[in-house]
Amino acid sequence: MATIEFWYEFTSPYSYPAAMGIEKTAAENGVQVQWKPFLLGPIFKAQGWDNSPFNIYPAKGAYMWRDMERICEAQNLAFTRPAIFPQNSLSAARLALCTVVAGHVADFTKLVYQAAFANQKDIFLPETLEQILKSLAINPDVAFEQAGSLDVKAALRINTETAIEKQIFGAPSFVTQGGELFWGNDRLAQAVAWRAG
Amino acid sequence: MATIEFWYEFTSPYSYPAAMGIEKTAAENGVQVQWKPFLLGPIFKAQGWDNSPFNIYPAKGAYMWRDMERICEAQNLAFTRPAIFPQNSLSAARLALCTVVAGHVADFTKLVYQAAFANQKDIFLPETLEQILKSLAINPDVAFEQAGSLDVKAALRINTETAIEKQIFGAPSFVTQGGELFWGNDRLAQAVAWRAG
Repeated sequence: MATIEFWYEFTSPYSYPAAMGIEKTAAENGVQVQWKPFLLGPIFKAQGWDNSPFNIYPAKGAYMWRDMERICEAQNLAFTRPAIFPQNSLSAARLALCTVVAGHVADFTKLVYQAAFANQKDIFLPETLEQILKSLAINPDVAFEQAGSLDVKAALRINTETAIEKQIFGAPSFVTQGGELFWGNDRLAQAVAWRAG
Repeated sequence: MATIEFWYEFTSPYSYPAAMGIEKTAAENGVQVQWKPFLLGPIFKAQGWDNSPFNIYPAKGAYMWRDMERICEAQNLAFTRPAIFPQNSLSAARLALCTVVAGHVADFTKLVYQAAFANQKDIFLPETLEQILKSLAINPDVAFEQAGSLDVKAALRINTETAIEKQIFGAPSFVTQGGELFWGNDRLAQAVAWRAG
């Protein structure tokens, strides 16, 4: 079965509609999604940014928030601009890489995005993540212990380093089996349907 | 008749496929295109950039050139990466605003983009622009004289200032009659089809 890598960052607004829509698009194309959480922070730092470009460049940010409203409305997704932006996505990203979450990574990811971009929840707060884990019948204590382990910390570092090697510079990004990179929620359908020419 | 403003910069790679495709998409939607050349330089400078972001951020640049190949192939457009990037677009932008060019602005714009992104021509060279003008049966001497006039220089400055007022931060951008801004060649169809909700 063909696969597509879905590279996402929990603080990335445009990754929210991508996460909510990718399974349907992938299924329609007979493609399986590989969920790849990573951190944009180190990539942005290497570009000289210590904040989200949506905060550094106000016109870009104002556009993005309006654009998110339009996109979510078209996709029938609830959307509320988070009070704090960007959020700290470290705990959520580590949890997504735990073995106890692995079988639920799609649902976990979507619930974190909904918490952040629909329900104005702080996704760095343990109780936000605990509630999500419980709703998936995952033992939060076990998950948090795994999330703090050296293995999981290393797994997230490796994902971020792999993203850099793949020349990923933003989120969401999609990488096909042939190594084609597509950046942005706008390119989801094209990326999933991409076949080597 | 409904109109859409098409804001473009002659050095902007993604504005090339947008310029080549917008008339067909607009005609299919019963929308008339208003061609709005402007300069990104002052906008980028205000963001602290003295070069194209595609040069400042190498991963972003590498992605863009590959993406241009894919987009142009899908749109059946010739594409050759320019030897010099970004080019100096000042003369072309001023010419696009001359009264002798006004009736031909769509064709002039498309020919300049083809010179830059298909035929590896230097669009700052007078002979490149002269050839384009002649192919449209426009007297180059008259056009160059107008392009150097205070009126045309002011018109380009006003376009760029208007772009800033409209919170445009990149090209191509599209602005609907209701003031909705869409950024990027990917959003052309959506922008043209946009109706106030």
